[in-house]
Amino acid sequence: MRLLTPPAVSTFVHHTAVRLAADLPLESGQRLPTPSIAYETLGTLNADRSNAVLVCHALTGDQYVATAHPATGKPGWWTRMVGAGRPIDPARHFILCANVIGGCMGSEGPASLRPGSLGSDGTLWGLDFPVITIADMVRAQAALLDALGIDTLLAVVGGSMGGMQALQWPVSYPDRVRSVVAIATATRHSAQNIAFHEVGRQAIMADPRWKGGAYGKAAPTAGLAVARMAAHITYLSEAGLTAKFGRSLQDRADLSFGFDADFQIESYLRHQGMSFVDRFDANSYLYITRAMDYFDLAAPHEGKLASAFAQTSARFCVIAFDSDWLYPTSESRRTVQALVAAGRHVSFVELASPHGHDSFLLESPALNAVVDGFLRAGEQQAQGPV
Amino acid sequence: MRLLTPPAVSTFVHHTAVRLAADLPLESGQRLPTPSIAYETLGTLNADRSNAVLVCHALTGDQYVATAHPATGKPGWWTRMVGAGRPIDPARHFILCANVIGGCMGSEGPASLRPGSLGSDGTLWGLDFPVITIADMVRAQAALLDALGIDTLLAVVGGSMGGMQALQWPVSYPDRVRSVVAIATATRHSAQNIAFHEVGRQAIMADPRWKGGAYGKAAPTAGLAVARMAAHITYLSEAGLTAKFGRSLQDRADLSFGFDADFQIESYLRHQGMSFVDRFDANSYLYITRAMDYFDLAAPHEGKLASAFAQTSARFCVIAFDSDWLYPTSESRRTVQALVAAGRHVSFVELASPHGHDSFLLESPALNAVVDGFLRAGEQQAQGPV
Repeated sequence: MRLLTPPAVSTFVHHTAVRLAADLPLESGQRLPTPSIAYETLGTLNADRSNAVLVCHALTGDQYVATAHPATGKPGWWTRMVGAGRPIDPARHFILCANVIGGCMGSEGPASLRPGSLGSDGTLWGLDFPVITIADMVRAQAALLDALGIDTLLAVVGGSMGGMQALQWPVSYPDRVRSVVAIATATRHSAQNIAFHEVGRQAIMADPRWKGGAYGKAAPTAGLAVARMAAHITYLSEAGLTAKFGRSLQDRADLSFGFDADFQIESYLRHQGMSFVDRFDANSYLYITRAMDYFDLAAPHEGKLASAFAQTSARFCVIAFDSDWLYPTSESRRTVQALVAAGRHVSFVELASPHGHDSFLLESPALNAVVDGFLRAGEQQAQGPV
Repeated sequence: MRLLTPPAVSTFVHHTAVRLAADLPLESGQRLPTPSIAYETLGTLNADRSNAVLVCHALTGDQYVATAHPATGKPGWWTRMVGAGRPIDPARHFILCANVIGGCMGSEGPASLRPGSLGSDGTLWGLDFPVITIADMVRAQAALLDALGIDTLLAVVGGSMGGMQALQWPVSYPDRVRSVVAIATATRHSAQNIAFHEVGRQAIMADPRWKGGAYGKAAPTAGLAVARMAAHITYLSEAGLTAKFGRSLQDRADLSFGFDADFQIESYLRHQGMSFVDRFDANSYLYITRAMDYFDLAAPHEGKLASAFAQTSARFCVIAFDSDWLYPTSESRRTVQALVAAGRHVSFVELASPHGHDSFLLESPALNAVVDGFLRAGEQQAQGPV
């Protein structure tokens, strides 16, 4: 099945997708009628269907983890981790990455045509799209696996929001995943996390072009750019910003005594904001940030995080970066303590990096070595005598 | 002289002010024609005019440090530090606090009537107001002291942007200040500091009501509220937010699965944004954040911070809070190292507090004890034998 991205995204792009045969039940109690799930694959599923690795993407990511993006032509967003000779390797693994529901890269989201709408001028979901959660994203992925005839994942791997999905997987489907790699993430969104997301949502909603979500093709790009700028600061570290930009001026010898982008950091942030709006839908940003804010693995277990992990036999690798202040090491420690308390096998690594939260996306031989070693140990375990 | 606040501020309020007899030269090379400086005083200037203490306000502060605000009726913003029995005490000190130029509480700023304009419908400065710096703010304060017949300050005291002014004072006027108290501040704005300010400015400028600064009475409140929300997060600590709000819900038992303010932190931030726009001018926010971003005491001295402090004989007290990530202790240490290198007398204290940058405004017996002791020691020194 080939789908067109909806008109709210600037260019029409073909994505590979399935449309589920059944409705998808949601945590809210609503049902998403036969949603589309867009995905990419790399490698070959082996005969006993035991080599599938699901990679989960972050807030503004997509399914193009290691294949060129059809709109921008840029390489996949995690070619450092996924590809020939990388820890997640198509020579060994059947690699699967799906656009989350609520997203805007072919999976059902607020910018999708509503069921029954015809053609590119049909009615979009907009804010009638139901609010979804991380567990709903994972439920959609499980339905995709069903459609592809895959029962069990060799591993689920993700960073940031992708890590939330990775941690949700063994909680929702205790017997369908063998290894979990959760990088730069947490089992709940903190007040500060929620606060930054709320600023972004308010920036979008304050844009008069947002129009309660019914903006069609005239998207609230100004508000979305501000949202992206605010969020982008949280992805970097203070030390990293100082090292990269400091107080360096942009294309000028002296201060302008005006409101131009005098400083390189200003120019950089403005570019981040402006380039983002070309590739992302504002309503999707609202829905996905909401899903992250709602994330709290312990909540259905009376606040006992260990109970969430009681049913699974999956093994875990939890990785934090010391300069990540968005999902700090302390949150990873909480996750690890709960996993150990639940009797799970868990490896925990804190890596040194000056690059803050974004470290998981950057070149990191140490990160690759850890993920590679953890995945290979799991594969040997699966093959060898118990 | 009594001035009316300009029409961009929601209500007309009387402020005590002087209009300077001469133009104020600015760092940009421009001149501000005979600007108004609004100020408040407490206590009595003694016979030898040696007991004047200048308190400098932060980004969104004003001259109402310990007198009721004429618009809101609320008590002054620093009654914990200034008042009877407090470290800065009208029984002992002649306390002076002036609204910064660029501000919107009676001092000349972008929302002031342009020279030659008549009445409340006259032309406002808007973006024709010259870009000002922290040194310009201090120059305006020095001109105010001249107008009041005060040569030397017993002390200058401030937190955050007020602390920047306090540190600028002995650099600009080495012989006019005896003691400097700089709290929760830095001698330069970091890339991260600039980044957060740029997000706020872009939020304001993205509001269609901003109109290049020529908004008159229809202010860009939506953009200003978003700017305030983003900034407010930086004033608090992650731990403080977790302790105060965590993931607690606002007036509801369960998640709404919508975009209402489900969480208390969302409701709190929205309130912060909405209440701010009633008391602050959007263009002033642009100008004052710009002044802070431009602040770099070492810049005129080829990056040698110690050189900036070479001319003064003032004594210094530098105070940081351990949970302040906006102006972290490491920046205070830089300041202290430069002061020591310059041969200055400096006391440095890092206080423990869970409340982040805002700690300097909150109840803190330790802060009061430090400021009180430092000021009294300076007064004894001034009176006793050398």
